[in-house]
Amino acid sequence: MRRKEFSVDYETEGRVEIESFLNEMTFGFLGTQAEGHPHITPLNYVYHEGTFYMHGSRIGQKMRDIAEREAVTFAVAKEYSIIPSYFSGAEIACPATAFFKSVVAYGRISEVTDLDQKCEAFSLFMKRLQPEGGYRPFSAEDPEYRKNLKGVAMLQIIPERLTAKFKFGQNQGERVWRLIAQNLKERNTPDSLQTFSEMERRCPFGH
Amino acid sequence: MRRKEFSVDYETEGRVEIESFLNEMTFGFLGTQAEGHPHITPLNYVYHEGTFYMHGSRIGQKMRDIAEREAVTFAVAKEYSIIPSYFSGAEIACPATAFFKSVVAYGRISEVTDLDQKCEAFSLFMKRLQPEGGYRPFSAEDPEYRKNLKGVAMLQIIPERLTAKFKFGQNQGERVWRLIAQNLKERNTPDSLQTFSEMERRCPFGH
Repeated sequence: MRRKEFSVDYETEGRVEIESFLNEMTFGFLGTQAEGHPHITPLNYVYHEGTFYMHGSRIGQKMRDIAEREAVTFAVAKEYSIIPSYFSGAEIACPATAFFKSVVAYGRISEVTDLDQKCEAFSLFMKRLQPEGGYRPFSAEDPEYRKNLKGVAMLQIIPERLTAKFKFGQNQGERVWRLIAQNLKERNTPDSLQTFSEMERRCPFGH
Repeated sequence: MRRKEFSVDYETEGRVEIESFLNEMTFGFLGTQAEGHPHITPLNYVYHEGTFYMHGSRIGQKMRDIAEREAVTFAVAKEYSIIPSYFSGAEIACPATAFFKSVVAYGRISEVTDLDQKCEAFSLFMKRLQPEGGYRPFSAEDPEYRKNLKGVAMLQIIPERLTAKFKFGQNQGERVWRLIAQNLKERNTPDSLQTFSEMERRCPFGH
């Protein structure tokens, strides 16, 4: 990323907010190398103690790609608000932008094959995506789970490098920053107020 | 994609719903080839008459990648609803899933360099992302726009191949399909009702 104002550093003070964002999101984009074009597969993921987990069919394009090249990329992003150009008090369209968070992780992908470990990873998924419960706990000894566990692939990525860009007006001068903040407050929707709160958390000026 | 039930065909009857989805979304994921790992850049896009447009800095990783390899991938996806396992009447967790739409386009990326064409592409962006107006119309003759237009890159992808997966329970038997539909109706949130309506549009059974 070119603009340093938006960079959030996983190695230092940024880790907590990056992990909080990754734990809030449920959907990401897996990039795999292939002949010709890269492939991108949108899928659910869960992030736990520095590892991304995702699952899917044991056959198909994604599995063929990673059998050949395990160096993959995983991206998670959320658009918070479109910022119209007139929020900045401008006549021209150029200040129009979007405020968003994105995390891109680079690492090697591998398959979790041990059935007990697969149970643990699927349990993480269910705790995240179905926190209200309502299912029999996973066990590799349970014949019904055992059969299903063998039928699907569980994949894991331990990032070697992770970049995060949280763009909330940190590059603006104070006058424009305050105009955008004020306009978001006045728009008064759940999205705009959440975006305003993200701006405030990273305010480059005094409040 | 392995499961044909979810495939939507751009070449035939699927084009209208694919284009409608692409026109509704504003944020996508650009995959570029690179040494080692693929790169993924989340960004705003606009889709117009078969072409994806996106813009960004004229320098940086994305531009270096595409200068070397113009074969790229662009993915757009939206998760509609998480479907808990118990919606299907199951005791085990395995039926838990998510209903979503995803479109993945493969093509060559190129830069729009002609200033009048750049104006047109930026106008498309503004019409899509700021339909309420509130800015001076673009013109390559306008000195302020001219300077700004020269400072940013406008990219276009004309897909050579486009795949779409719209997953809304089309693979289910009638009993489970009706259980999920009923549960989504009863959840009665804007998301669940929208997901229900997407299920109904593709209902593999009579109503």
